[in-house]
Amino acid sequence: MYKNGRVTIPTDETFVEGTKEIAKLWGADAVRDCDGVKLPKNPGEIADKVYNVYFVDRGNHEWAKNNPDEWQHMFVMTPYITAFGDSLTVRLMDTFYAEQVKPDFSSEALKYMEVIDRTTGEIHGSFTVDKENGKVVIEKTTPFHQYTVAFIMISLWHPVHMYNYITNGWNEPHHTMYDPYYPKTNKFIRENLKRWCDENPDCNVVRFTTFLYMFSLVYNQKGKERNVDWFGYNMAVSPKMLDDFEKKYGYKMRAEYLVDGGFYNSTHRIPSKEYKDYMEFVQDFVTETVKDLVRITHEKGKEAMMFLGDCWIGAEIFGERFKELDLDALVGSVGGGVTVRMLSDVEGVRYKEGRFLPYFFPDTFFDGNEDNAVAELNRNWITTRRAMMRNPLDRIGFGGYLSLAAKFPKFIGRAAEICDEFRYIYDTVKTQDPMSFAKVAVLNCWGKIRSWMCNMTAHELWYQQSYSYQGIYEALSGLPVDVSFINFDDVKAGKLKDYDVVINAGDAGTAWSGGEKWLDEKVITEVRKFVYNGGGFIGVGEPTAIQSNGRFFQLSDVMGVEKELGISLGEDKYNIEKHPEHFITKGIKAPIDYGEDKKNVYALDCANVIDIVISDRFIRKVNVGEVKMATNTYGKGRSFYITGLPYSAENAKMLYRAILWTAGKEDMDERSYCDNPLTEAHFYGDRYAITNNTDREQKTAFYDMNGKKREIILKPYEIKWIFE
Amino acid sequence: MYKNGRVTIPTDETFVEGTKEIAKLWGADAVRDCDGVKLPKNPGEIADKVYNVYFVDRGNHEWAKNNPDEWQHMFVMTPYITAFGDSLTVRLMDTFYAEQVKPDFSSEALKYMEVIDRTTGEIHGSFTVDKENGKVVIEKTTPFHQYTVAFIMISLWHPVHMYNYITNGWNEPHHTMYDPYYPKTNKFIRENLKRWCDENPDCNVVRFTTFLYMFSLVYNQKGKERNVDWFGYNMAVSPKMLDDFEKKYGYKMRAEYLVDGGFYNSTHRIPSKEYKDYMEFVQDFVTETVKDLVRITHEKGKEAMMFLGDCWIGAEIFGERFKELDLDALVGSVGGGVTVRMLSDVEGVRYKEGRFLPYFFPDTFFDGNEDNAVAELNRNWITTRRAMMRNPLDRIGFGGYLSLAAKFPKFIGRAAEICDEFRYIYDTVKTQDPMSFAKVAVLNCWGKIRSWMCNMTAHELWYQQSYSYQGIYEALSGLPVDVSFINFDDVKAGKLKDYDVVINAGDAGTAWSGGEKWLDEKVITEVRKFVYNGGGFIGVGEPTAIQSNGRFFQLSDVMGVEKELGISLGEDKYNIEKHPEHFITKGIKAPIDYGEDKKNVYALDCANVIDIVISDRFIRKVNVGEVKMATNTYGKGRSFYITGLPYSAENAKMLYRAILWTAGKEDMDERSYCDNPLTEAHFYGDRYAITNNTDREQKTAFYDMNGKKREIILKPYEIKWIFE
Repeated sequence: MYKNGRVTIPTDETFVEGTKEIAKLWGADAVRDCDGVKLPKNPGEIADKVYNVYFVDRGNHEWAKNNPDEWQHMFVMTPYITAFGDSLTVRLMDTFYAEQVKPDFSSEALKYMEVIDRTTGEIHGSFTVDKENGKVVIEKTTPFHQYTVAFIMISLWHPVHMYNYITNGWNEPHHTMYDPYYPKTNKFIRENLKRWCDENPDCNVVRFTTFLYMFSLVYNQKGKERNVDWFGYNMAVSPKMLDDFEKKYGYKMRAEYLVDGGFYNSTHRIPSKEYKDYMEFVQDFVTETVKDLVRITHEKGKEAMMFLGDCWIGAEIFGERFKELDLDALVGSVGGGVTVRMLSDVEGVRYKEGRFLPYFFPDTFFDGNEDNAVAELNRNWITTRRAMMRNPLDRIGFGGYLSLAAKFPKFIGRAAEICDEFRYIYDTVKTQDPMSFAKVAVLNCWGKIRSWMCNMTAHELWYQQSYSYQGIYEALSGLPVDVSFINFDDVKAGKLKDYDVVINAGDAGTAWSGGEKWLDEKVITEVRKFVYNGGGFIGVGEPTAIQSNGRFFQLSDVMGVEKELGISLGEDKYNIEKHPEHFITKGIKAPIDYGEDKKNVYALDCANVIDIVISDRFIRKVNVGEVKMATNTYGKGRSFYITGLPYSAENAKMLYRAILWTAGKEDMDERSYCDNPLTEAHFYGDRYAITNNTDREQKTAFYDMNGKKREIILKPYEIKWIFE
Repeated sequence: MYKNGRVTIPTDETFVEGTKEIAKLWGADAVRDCDGVKLPKNPGEIADKVYNVYFVDRGNHEWAKNNPDEWQHMFVMTPYITAFGDSLTVRLMDTFYAEQVKPDFSSEALKYMEVIDRTTGEIHGSFTVDKENGKVVIEKTTPFHQYTVAFIMISLWHPVHMYNYITNGWNEPHHTMYDPYYPKTNKFIRENLKRWCDENPDCNVVRFTTFLYMFSLVYNQKGKERNVDWFGYNMAVSPKMLDDFEKKYGYKMRAEYLVDGGFYNSTHRIPSKEYKDYMEFVQDFVTETVKDLVRITHEKGKEAMMFLGDCWIGAEIFGERFKELDLDALVGSVGGGVTVRMLSDVEGVRYKEGRFLPYFFPDTFFDGNEDNAVAELNRNWITTRRAMMRNPLDRIGFGGYLSLAAKFPKFIGRAAEICDEFRYIYDTVKTQDPMSFAKVAVLNCWGKIRSWMCNMTAHELWYQQSYSYQGIYEALSGLPVDVSFINFDDVKAGKLKDYDVVINAGDAGTAWSGGEKWLDEKVITEVRKFVYNGGGFIGVGEPTAIQSNGRFFQLSDVMGVEKELGISLGEDKYNIEKHPEHFITKGIKAPIDYGEDKKNVYALDCANVIDIVISDRFIRKVNVGEVKMATNTYGKGRSFYITGLPYSAENAKMLYRAILWTAGKEDMDERSYCDNPLTEAHFYGDRYAITNNTDREQKTAFYDMNGKKREIILKPYEIKWIFE
């Protein structure tokens, strides 16, 4: 049964017979098109499902050209500019890309222009707009104060199209985005979809790429990326939307609520009420519109598939209204366990598909590079597989030019094995619930709506300031625990009782750590009560951190650690002895990888210090030492603190042990468990899966659910299935 | 002329002839006593000046015993204690040392007791005091809120006496401190001094150790140091003082103003108005009282010398009223250039003396350790000598048991050479002003009153969080520049115009960096104007840092650098190329020592990056890199930023070059200058001094004031004097 289906391959009209062969080998039941190629005629002969890319708000150049009054907009802000005299001239386009945007000088847009004195934070009323020269002259400035101008731009070019165009040297008309919030376009996108469906009878899955509004992606005057935020709403803006927002919410949407001092409400920011209102407003409109598009698609006898990216803003996959869209499918690129779970944990859509690496492009698929291509395939698979063992995608697929991959027989063969392995995992996990040893809640300002999206700026891009936190989620994606994402309102609503362990991780002042939310008396007492009554708390980096009431870590009492900010040096710190032997670190080889780490954390007397670094320079013993890991007990509960947790096999194992320990479940140690961190075990009721997450042979002690131990040897990448 | 005087040696009654010999060899003209020994009879035969230790507020056990109502007090706070139910019992002595303190349960003291709900920050009125059991019962608590009790303790034992007693196993009565703020003791200390002067006719210099109130030094329940703050006023407190404060200042001195959430107004904290008022109040009383003691001393024909330490609180050596004390002398221990300048820059006292290392104690002066003793002497001398070259002390001295040192003839000989060298430096610098190439102002919340005391917790103690800043002051103490310490009020008063360069250095939120002071529109515009018009700005660590108005470094525009706090990751940062060749780093060997460093600093496009670290882990090029050093231009002015500057010869040279560069004085490069960082040059009008700051021979290019270069070879520790 599991030898067929659940796999999508790319194809084109020049590679029909090759596609048929590989499709059979891989058990592929869907074909898709790809940039720059066309599907063969009668693609239905190759596979049951035929995917075609469809753009809702771009691509129809005639419509775009004829309706410039309905082009899309975005809210932007100039840099901070200093006044040296009593007036200041600001050239609006100085830091923006003239091919991407131009200022909207209509009166409807200009009424949202806002000049702020950034030295005082006050709105500055005195300015005039010089439309002809694209300037704003700010009058009555105070010398040496800084000013910004926030205003609405008209979008001229879809930034992803622009990026591909520039990167690949395309020669085709620029894709301009038209805005369905305006009446003509609102009607047009419906009719256009109907027409397109009729004109594409072979396609039975419309791959929406994507819906209405692009995530935030702004270029600078040199045509290089200026700002990016995969979650940002500043391109889901128009004067009409802002007017309607005011009617619905009863207050005016100020520029500052959207540009947010230049942070543009990045997902790392603690979201303001106004920004959350605006997100809701956009989601409502997107939901109502996309519902209609999906209905049309269904009426045309096709499935509707959402690509998770590009114009996905407002279609929040973990939002409350997502299920209303009635989508058949959700597809996204997967590079690791986090991106798998970001798709597979979504509810309200019939199936979820992951596009795997490597992409079949000439940068990988060139002569002599077959071994590297196979290695990348394996790496991608064993990384994403960890998450599949917990909650698999419904489908996997590849992208690019299949004819290139076809030249690498080892690659084709290995991919076939992976397709089979995927289908076996799928059938197992979907029929037998995987054993879960604890219920874990990740607590931050966003909660559910940013499930598996924490500490993320741009989808799958690496940031030095993020990876030490992202490792937590990557680890969690494949651990035998249930994972939920909750926010501070959930805490106040008493939801902590549903969990064994709560995790708070992030830099001070970010949405992830929580900032001022920790000054809410109700929040802090709920968390204390939860731990006191036996709950577990795991803090990473600067959890619960905001300087107030004489504390930086607001739950320093629960965690047993605090951070020295240079204002409490006079307080002696004696708890500097290391106790590396602990349940949590059992079997973990030193040195631990703390990633970017945090400095100046010290232990309160109550804490148990697992790891601490004493400076080489130390001259005296007291007040010296930076804690890296510590545990604490609080009432019946327990806490574990660590400065950073980048992803590694050792760190994933350690996090699992920390979850068991803080949950008071030490008796669950060595139950469905491998002691070699490079291997992992899962229990599915009637069988165990033991995975080798490496490209080398691994030996491990495996303990079954009764704690019975046996030695296991695993081949590279192997999953050993053991039936009870 | 310079072969005699300006040197103090310790002696005792068992070593009279030896003292005479060494005194002659060193040119010593003063003798002093030392703990545990007595001066010989007729000490005046050995030296002109005879110092005797005198305690104002302790040491008379009979007075202490008979006047328990006038013992000294201190304000303390319990730790944060969590209520798990609706009441909470706090044992007041739980974290204090019963031999040092006991709670003051008098009604006068109890009216200052304050219970605070630290979860809300509010005063909690409902509590009762159980005097018998030393408890406070806090009623009507909110479960899982934390509470503190701040209250007044009675001091039972002088903490320095206690420390010495415990450390040295002394057997003598505890020294209890009596408080001259109370009328009987106020009268007693005068009479006692008169009597003591009469009883000690041989003494002609009364070495006050020290005056009225101890710096903050509190022990914990185990008799170990709990809190220390060399600048702290919480032991200069009594119910009567607090009552009188209210009468004078018109508002009640709350416990919280003094215990400050447990930070006790440490010198690292941004001082509150209330704390500064209280400091002024104490200084007024100490000034009026000590003036009288000095007058009595003078009337008795003796000199009054203040020891800088122990009970020096209220006698602020850089305070406005210090000169009123009419002291003859100020003495303190010196371990480096900073502690030399802390004494030598004091005004309003006739002479300043430094006590050098090593102390003549058995821990250094034991058989076979002569070379180490000499090495420590040399190390101390070349460190302190840098500051002497700029502003020398008037006298130097040693402490301990001279008979021990006498057993080490090499030590005695080397000390004799140092005494001669000191006198030569003294005569030179006091008669010829050393050439200064720039006027530098260090800007922080304290300004002048904490001159040379920045980033200091306890006198000469090393702290991991401080040394990367203290290096700035150590470097400055010996550089050919004028150094002033100014605060934000000075900036607002327009005083920046008196300087070439302003330095702001410290961790965010500390008194050194300035915290919220940088949100004062007047401050920030004054500093911008200063730089814009040609001034120099040097920022170290987290200068001008407070998150507000979309910025963390409030002068990021001036400095060209900003810190990524994890909320602006979506903003692309392209300025990551290193330009190590710069005026500032010329002749400085990499790698630079940044000490504890700061992470996540990035350069704005305008800046010139001198040094940047790219993570080994980096996966993509943009947004990667942590700036260590950068320069910027702003109008006619310039800025230099560095993450940390621990003391080293290289860093001192680099700081000097940074001062010249930011001051726009590159033309002063290679003027009275050595290019070998281990050597330094000073110009005194008619001669140059070229110092070798190491124990090895050094070769350097030396440039005179005309830029004429010559090669110089210096013997270990040598000063070469070159006359023009």
